[in-house]
Amino acid sequence: MDIQQTANQCKTASISMSSLSAEIKNKALANIISALKTNESAIRDANKNDLERARKENLDTPLLKRLKFDSAKRLEACDGIESLIRLADPVGTTLNAVELDNGLELYKVSRPIGVIGVIFESRPDALVQIAALCLKSGNAVLLKGGSEASETNQVLAQIIHAAGVDAGCPAGWLGLLETRSDVDRMLQLDQTVDLIIPRGSNAFVKYIMDHTRIPVLGHADGICHLYIDRLADPDMAIELAVDSKTQYVAVCNAIETILVHRDVANEMLPKLKTALEQKQVSILGCGKTQAIIDVDAAGEKDWQTEYLDLIVSIRVVDSLDQGLSHINQYGSGHTDVIVTTDKSRALYFMDRADTADVFWNCSSRFSDGFRFGLGAEVGVSTNKIHARGPVGLEGLMIYQWRMMGNGHRVKDYVGEDAKPFSHTPIDKEFS
Amino acid sequence: MDIQQTANQCKTASISMSSLSAEIKNKALANIISALKTNESAIRDANKNDLERARKENLDTPLLKRLKFDSAKRLEACDGIESLIRLADPVGTTLNAVELDNGLELYKVSRPIGVIGVIFESRPDALVQIAALCLKSGNAVLLKGGSEASETNQVLAQIIHAAGVDAGCPAGWLGLLETRSDVDRMLQLDQTVDLIIPRGSNAFVKYIMDHTRIPVLGHADGICHLYIDRLADPDMAIELAVDSKTQYVAVCNAIETILVHRDVANEMLPKLKTALEQKQVSILGCGKTQAIIDVDAAGEKDWQTEYLDLIVSIRVVDSLDQGLSHINQYGSGHTDVIVTTDKSRALYFMDRADTADVFWNCSSRFSDGFRFGLGAEVGVSTNKIHARGPVGLEGLMIYQWRMMGNGHRVKDYVGEDAKPFSHTPIDKEFS
Repeated sequence: MDIQQTANQCKTASISMSSLSAEIKNKALANIISALKTNESAIRDANKNDLERARKENLDTPLLKRLKFDSAKRLEACDGIESLIRLADPVGTTLNAVELDNGLELYKVSRPIGVIGVIFESRPDALVQIAALCLKSGNAVLLKGGSEASETNQVLAQIIHAAGVDAGCPAGWLGLLETRSDVDRMLQLDQTVDLIIPRGSNAFVKYIMDHTRIPVLGHADGICHLYIDRLADPDMAIELAVDSKTQYVAVCNAIETILVHRDVANEMLPKLKTALEQKQVSILGCGKTQAIIDVDAAGEKDWQTEYLDLIVSIRVVDSLDQGLSHINQYGSGHTDVIVTTDKSRALYFMDRADTADVFWNCSSRFSDGFRFGLGAEVGVSTNKIHARGPVGLEGLMIYQWRMMGNGHRVKDYVGEDAKPFSHTPIDKEFS
Repeated sequence: MDIQQTANQCKTASISMSSLSAEIKNKALANIISALKTNESAIRDANKNDLERARKENLDTPLLKRLKFDSAKRLEACDGIESLIRLADPVGTTLNAVELDNGLELYKVSRPIGVIGVIFESRPDALVQIAALCLKSGNAVLLKGGSEASETNQVLAQIIHAAGVDAGCPAGWLGLLETRSDVDRMLQLDQTVDLIIPRGSNAFVKYIMDHTRIPVLGHADGICHLYIDRLADPDMAIELAVDSKTQYVAVCNAIETILVHRDVANEMLPKLKTALEQKQVSILGCGKTQAIIDVDAAGEKDWQTEYLDLIVSIRVVDSLDQGLSHINQYGSGHTDVIVTTDKSRALYFMDRADTADVFWNCSSRFSDGFRFGLGAEVGVSTNKIHARGPVGLEGLMIYQWRMMGNGHRVKDYVGEDAKPFSHTPIDKEFS
């Protein structure tokens, strides 16, 4: 099938997907778990071929690691699906209900978005996870995986599609695009695909954001900050700086820059240096930082860099406001932290830091869908509309206005003898 | 000031705007009402100049009518602002709160989006309305009006900006772009403008949607349908068809196509013809329609046309599913109606019509923010993310995740001795 046909089938399937019962969707998810087990050897063979080809093409070790889909990854994926089964059906929830007039009722009801386009690099486990999330939320899904994982992806997509159809999902609810040029083709499908979720490197996500009119849910980078206020508890500030930087460096919610209020710079900077260097972190500092501790210079470019490594930049700021200006200028609106013992300063910071996740006296690394208790994570968004920060299933949902009347005409509600609207809230689920 | 400076100032102001108290915002709104009255003669003079120039340039009568900003329009705009003052502050509402562990609390709090770009044709009253909506929701606003209204817009923008600043809004909270080329410049400001709201003709909105990466909230067209089911009450069907088509034809929520189930076509079509022709509606029909009533032919192009006029196309469909296919293929996802006495068929229709507003046994013309009781209308959206259908102030809002801890580190929640998360919902407002 060519890409337009696959996409059209997916679009058509999205209508049926949106009206599936919770029972069918959960049965489909359970089927996927079984099918992944039953077909373990087929998956292993396909993955072996992908891995062999990747080794021949000298792909680097981290990529090979991501490419591997073994029993451990299958079990982890299945655990995720199990937890999805336990979540309430996000479709059909009444968000609001109001009576406009006698017998004229308006309901705002949660609904799936439609067709979710997912573009991911190398990791076949991402395919399993995102397919399950889309299914649970009643969306159809159009997948484009990395060519390195093509055989694994084909087998997985086929198994997952069939397991869904077997439970009552419409044919075509999951479509797989297979050639490299399909990425750019998918980015053009703005009549078919309602939302794109990219999974991969920053450069990859940025490319996608820059080449499509379809809304993209995600983040290109995570330049996160920790601001140490003049009223910070010094020990807490050190602990949180170390945890936010080093607990896991290769992730978007690790900090890249530490901002230190000038009043505490003399006290904090030597302590920060000792603590961070104990963790093998290289420090770059602004001029004022360099005047206090012996570190290399940080410049304009550093404030804009997501190191994703054991490197941190430090800047001394004159005030809370200057700290906020730095964050709002250089940050990516992902996660920013203030350390202070003064609540009013923390609230001031929260009101003015233009960022998805704003934290007071805790590590930036808490910024995560599972830690937030969202149950399942679609991704982290630095968008300013729709969904922001860690996104759970609700990022795959929109709503529909449903009105039920008994022949109500607008002409009776306008002009001189216009009937009034009551707009009385009603405490009733749509049914 | 050049456009980039104006935009930067607006971006900076957006941070302060987001943290204004409800009192300041309401005072600013009250100031705007007074200032519009105090400066009535300046506004009238500017508007007179615009109107004179427009007449010299032979602009057509409807445009001149829209361009006019007289006492009546001022009072109407001020009524709108009065009702905004009475609405609750949409900023800072706690949408969700959960305790992750002892002393580690997470709040999801409503926040303004940031900088709203508004591009509108001719109508100066739209400037007043949208500026007030942005102010109430704590957003900064960058306005681009039509060149026909340039003098009126300048005076209004200056008055409104000053009235806001006088109450405590930051300088630059409202920026006006003035030259024609500024439209295209604004569409490029994806680093500054977070959301664009266009107000104008379909072609105008479509142009904007097609020429920017910034999210656009709106609808290019409204091809709405009324489907008359085989189980429809015939009299109700006629009444609703007439009201949905003729109550006001030049609007997006008027229907353009009537779909009639074949089982009732023989009965319904002659009655529809009589009723619609009494209202001067011209009818175009598919082949099956033409076999029953004497009307001109409707073709592929008609199903895709928003007439916005006393014209309607009629198609006979074989089934409820065929009606739905037609709607999902040709509709613009705005408003679609089913007339039936059978609730299960109505629910089936609602679950499968991929449209923002889906109505059962009532007129499509109810699709409107004021009728819905939203208090203030930002516009009608046919997007599939963020906001759908009539959009109230909540379309100008997003949320922020706020976490408060006491030195909580992630390293204590991972590994062998990991502390567990409790994820206990807490019934507390963020403060």
